[in-house]
Amino acid sequence: METADNAEKRYNQFASDNYAGICPEAWQAMATANHGFAPSYGDDCWTKRACELLREQFETDCQIFFVFNGTAANSLALASLCHSFHSVICHDLAHIETDECGAPEFFSNGTKLLHVGGRAGKLDLDEVERTITRRSDIHYPKPRVLSLTQATEVGTVYTVEEVRAACDLAARYGLRVQMDGARFANAVVSLGATPAEQTWKAGVDVLCLGGAKNGMAVGEAVIFFRRDLADEFEYRCKQAGQLASKMRFLAAPWVGMLENDAWLDNARHANRCASLLAQELSAIDGLELMVPVQANSVFVRLPEPAAAALRDAGWRFYTFIGSGGARFMCSWQTTAEDVHLLAAAVRRAMAAA
Amino acid sequence: METADNAEKRYNQFASDNYAGICPEAWQAMATANHGFAPSYGDDCWTKRACELLREQFETDCQIFFVFNGTAANSLALASLCHSFHSVICHDLAHIETDECGAPEFFSNGTKLLHVGGRAGKLDLDEVERTITRRSDIHYPKPRVLSLTQATEVGTVYTVEEVRAACDLAARYGLRVQMDGARFANAVVSLGATPAEQTWKAGVDVLCLGGAKNGMAVGEAVIFFRRDLADEFEYRCKQAGQLASKMRFLAAPWVGMLENDAWLDNARHANRCASLLAQELSAIDGLELMVPVQANSVFVRLPEPAAAALRDAGWRFYTFIGSGGARFMCSWQTTAEDVHLLAAAVRRAMAAA
Amino acid sequence: METADNAEKRYNQFASDNYAGICPEAWQAMATANHGFAPSYGDDCWTKRACELLREQFETDCQIFFVFNGTAANSLALASLCHSFHSVICHDLAHIETDECGAPEFFSNGTKLLHVGGRAGKLDLDEVERTITRRSDIHYPKPRVLSLTQATEVGTVYTVEEVRAACDLAARYGLRVQMDGARFANAVVSLGATPAEQTWKAGVDVLCLGGAKNGMAVGEAVIFFRRDLADEFEYRCKQAGQLASKMRFLAAPWVGMLENDAWLDNARHANRCASLLAQELSAIDGLELMVPVQANSVFVRLPEPAAAALRDAGWRFYTFIGSGGARFMCSWQTTAEDVHLLAAAVRRAMAAA
Amino acid sequence: METADNAEKRYNQFASDNYAGICPEAWQAMATANHGFAPSYGDDCWTKRACELLREQFETDCQIFFVFNGTAANSLALASLCHSFHSVICHDLAHIETDECGAPEFFSNGTKLLHVGGRAGKLDLDEVERTITRRSDIHYPKPRVLSLTQATEVGTVYTVEEVRAACDLAARYGLRVQMDGARFANAVVSLGATPAEQTWKAGVDVLCLGGAKNGMAVGEAVIFFRRDLADEFEYRCKQAGQLASKMRFLAAPWVGMLENDAWLDNARHANRCASLLAQELSAIDGLELMVPVQANSVFVRLPEPAAAALRDAGWRFYTFIGSGGARFMCSWQTTAEDVHLLAAAVRRAMAAA
Repeated sequence: METADNAEKRYNQFASDNYAGICPEAWQAMATANHGFAPSYGDDCWTKRACELLREQFETDCQIFFVFNGTAANSLALASLCHSFHSVICHDLAHIETDECGAPEFFSNGTKLLHVGGRAGKLDLDEVERTITRRSDIHYPKPRVLSLTQATEVGTVYTVEEVRAACDLAARYGLRVQMDGARFANAVVSLGATPAEQTWKAGVDVLCLGGAKNGMAVGEAVIFFRRDLADEFEYRCKQAGQLASKMRFLAAPWVGMLENDAWLDNARHANRCASLLAQELSAIDGLELMVPVQANSVFVRLPEPAAAALRDAGWRFYTFIGSGGARFMCSWQTTAEDVHLLAAAVRRAMAAA
Repeated sequence: METADNAEKRYNQFASDNYAGICPEAWQAMATANHGFAPSYGDDCWTKRACELLREQFETDCQIFFVFNGTAANSLALASLCHSFHSVICHDLAHIETDECGAPEFFSNGTKLLHVGGRAGKLDLDEVERTITRRSDIHYPKPRVLSLTQATEVGTVYTVEEVRAACDLAARYGLRVQMDGARFANAVVSLGATPAEQTWKAGVDVLCLGGAKNGMAVGEAVIFFRRDLADEFEYRCKQAGQLASKMRFLAAPWVGMLENDAWLDNARHANRCASLLAQELSAIDGLELMVPVQANSVFVRLPEPAAAALRDAGWRFYTFIGSGGARFMCSWQTTAEDVHLLAAAVRRAMAAA
Repeated sequence: METADNAEKRYNQFASDNYAGICPEAWQAMATANHGFAPSYGDDCWTKRACELLREQFETDCQIFFVFNGTAANSLALASLCHSFHSVICHDLAHIETDECGAPEFFSNGTKLLHVGGRAGKLDLDEVERTITRRSDIHYPKPRVLSLTQATEVGTVYTVEEVRAACDLAARYGLRVQMDGARFANAVVSLGATPAEQTWKAGVDVLCLGGAKNGMAVGEAVIFFRRDLADEFEYRCKQAGQLASKMRFLAAPWVGMLENDAWLDNARHANRCASLLAQELSAIDGLELMVPVQANSVFVRLPEPAAAALRDAGWRFYTFIGSGGARFMCSWQTTAEDVHLLAAAVRRAMAAA
Repeated sequence: METADNAEKRYNQFASDNYAGICPEAWQAMATANHGFAPSYGDDCWTKRACELLREQFETDCQIFFVFNGTAANSLALASLCHSFHSVICHDLAHIETDECGAPEFFSNGTKLLHVGGRAGKLDLDEVERTITRRSDIHYPKPRVLSLTQATEVGTVYTVEEVRAACDLAARYGLRVQMDGARFANAVVSLGATPAEQTWKAGVDVLCLGGAKNGMAVGEAVIFFRRDLADEFEYRCKQAGQLASKMRFLAAPWVGMLENDAWLDNARHANRCASLLAQELSAIDGLELMVPVQANSVFVRLPEPAAAALRDAGWRFYTFIGSGGARFMCSWQTTAEDVHLLAAAVRRAMAAA
């Protein structure tokens, strides 16, 4: 079968970091894993090794489960942390609130998400506290989990101190903390702190660590830093259709990407491309960044005529109704050349508009 | 990372057809798909092409969805065919009843499975009818779906006439028909009838078509032969964590395996290995096949001492408590050499026991 | 057993209209129904008669189900109108959003509530439209139902034209309309329009008609104006624990209250008490009504010191954090004497504060 | 409204013990509770008193919740004792398996019921043990609760020793024990042992205590003997639509029936009527009791022609397809006169057939 036109593909790539393919390290590991037979459902050497490597990276004896995608990772983690009559507090812009078609509510059989605001995609802790304390009667679902997104949906990154402050607040009221880490690697390289410092050492109970946006074909890891919380989670995955039979192919990419730090290199590359793009776009008259670029996404305030011109030129990207915002995502596969190409196109679009 | 010992792997392989790896055609298609960028969530050329090829194979304008595994394929299909207060009728031995940890009940929010018996893994239609008609009061979940497994869990295959008879019975009482086709390809080559004849032409409404056991890394296709039944199924997949972001890697293997009939060749090869194994085992004194070998599994009545001896020799396989039964599965990757090896080991075990 | 002090009870009553007891007409009907034996699960003459009377009141051949409470009535009705991957649009203040502990999400297995604002407790239809049209991708739960509360949570009443406008908007986008009528009788007598004019003639698909707050011990009626939507709803009730075995005791009070218009008389009385209270409170210096009094509740802006003084005097009532609002509810059992008593107490509290 | 013909009602009554009305003690308590105002949602003196009386009866500081019916009581109790990926072991004939339309699966979001056989409606403990130990892999829902029905569905009663043996077996494997006590009072008076001896002292964790069949209009009590298991159960009730606003009317009947032992007197009366009926039926040539009569139901093997003749004579009762069995239930309201009437009718039907 012939593949689609490459030029067209380039135009598409900034729409999302999941438009990228499988990175070489993940691919090579899958190829190596694809020799002969292997026990199924995770009872294989690749799964064992991937868990070991993650434990090394996180410097703790955490419990790890590999599932198919981020929807499931977040939803299963949340469901395991609370009952259906509890509630989860998250940011207005959190993916679990805006882009999961009710998956958290489905997996948990009805847990309500309570969303709060906050600048630059980060939770306003005062508002979180008000949400926790506002009601204590039986007619309101009891807050039980605080969910953080790291890096955030708008490409900012909580500092370690900010993560710790959120976790401390949660702990004060008996809430558990889950971190949606679909782009966690981007946060790690952005902050410079260790994965451990950014998670369990700061008080995070469960991390959903993204693989797909980082360079894999499929798959995320749910990492429980408190083993008691992971109790029977394997049954939960199985029942919810998230146990891979040929698990080695979900696990091997993690091995490939963790053994030589490709997971961080990929993230570093994507972040740098975003930085470069931000720099080039900032130089364009009339263009303004909406939030600081701290990970692999760039949000700019793009006048509608310019957005239309850019779209007419073939480029694909997300815009946000009413806000005049446009989002450009970079990935492990983005090249400086493509960044220049996009920046030039935006410049033309702005000039034309 | 070093891979496990090859000899050990051989000993493992007959435990399940999901111990096999990714077949060359699936692998090559993934490699080809892994060039540049592609739109996510199924809006790519590979997904389009895979759907076209499946429509050609099934000779009808069916609606197709790619999900991660068989648990999800069956459970989502069933959930879309009934309400939580309905029931699904299946065989005692059906995978959805015995090996999904309550997944159908979970995805449907409580739909009850009513299981009936039947020889050689096939539904006894008289018993099915009694189950449908036994109760009509509001205190019992109303039967709404009949679920067939093709090939069956014990490696037998419903004839086209048998499928039609089951579908006719279902239609008579207003039930819909879902087919669990985790090993559907094995049935197709076993019967010689076309995929269309074995499914929608016989009255099947939805087929869950297995990819993993047929040679892929991951992924199954849910095929709705009646488009009205597929309405909004994409939302159901999304909410249930079964929408792949990098869908091309779920779709491409289908393209690779359908374009050159590898899906049928793989199944044919596995069936032949099972036949060969059955032949060799039948020649052993005291060994008896439990059911006819019509697909890729062989069930023999193995005396417990012989089973123990075989296990001591390193072989891994499923046995069934109380029944004295042992199951050996063949796959696209099984070799005649390995079949001989296993048969010889069984012979020794029988002699020693 | 001795009953609690009557004076204390008086102090309590304005906290909610469900602090009231069973009205004489409901009680008498239960007494009459309690002779001898009757078939269970609704196959009795009282249930039949109650349905007939409701059909007369609503002037249409609607389908009716009696359930235990408003939580279940609303949640089951909504669950029957949409799938788990759909969403329901309601007001920020809607009871289903603020006071059901996630029940709608639980009964529907994950349907998300999208809440919009609007003055005086009524939906802002522009905002509703924006919410419907904002997203059309698969990652967002598809809006499927519009839920109206009549009378609203703040005691205002949608006019017939307003109901029709909301229903027209819903219809334009293929949404169904459910009405939470926990205090529907109060709206009927407030507007003067017939029950039919306020519901199905204006486009409402399902009404959850409140019994408890109107004077019964327990029980609400779910009324489907489109019979096709009611299909198999009886199974849904059964499975969700909402089918009463001794149904006659849920149905008889409806007969008692409908036969002689007690349901409207009760509502009229409660509304009048609220009017009287509003009048007396309005006369107090510094007190201001927050919304027009159109049903049986009175919302006033009560300075915190006055609220505290009133509480110290023994009175119990709801206040709303931050807003300085206080709510007083009247019921069929409220007396003008008690209204004067409360008004006098508020006057004293205001003077003291 | 005129009531149905009394004679017809008599013919109906043996169909079920829920055809009976509200007993005088329950009625009187409701009447007394219906004075003035009372706080809602259980914050009233009647609820407090009912809990105290139940604690006295059960001689322990148990945690008690009043819900609307048995479906909900059992389903909520089970849901609170296990996760969706667990399973509940019960008898083939258990009401939760045969007559709840999938309610336990619905409330628990997918918990599977594993049913086992056993003579006279009682669990065969060997079979229970085999069911617990049969599987230990992740593909099968993990057994977590053992559910006993007392009195059983066929009107037999587990002895205290039998209850203890079942609980001991459960405890040995880490299972919790729930007792469906829809007719628990009938078992108490049948055995003569105290409620405590028959429940928590024998190892029962949670009892669902029936009120409706015992003489109330509506309502069951869920009694947790281990307080830790009851944690947040009030939220579960609320979310599932089982929190009554005017709770006093659910609680008062318990007060009325517990204060003067009416709950036991009612059960004793019903049991005696069943005994009397059994005695009279046994005297009829060709009639045979199917199980010993130990509570308030009588099961006889009634030839189909006789069953038809009895039905033609106007009597209503349950029969069981294929088994030739007929069930007659007695209640607090049954009279010796009606028993004689039924027995005479059966005699005539047998003679005619």
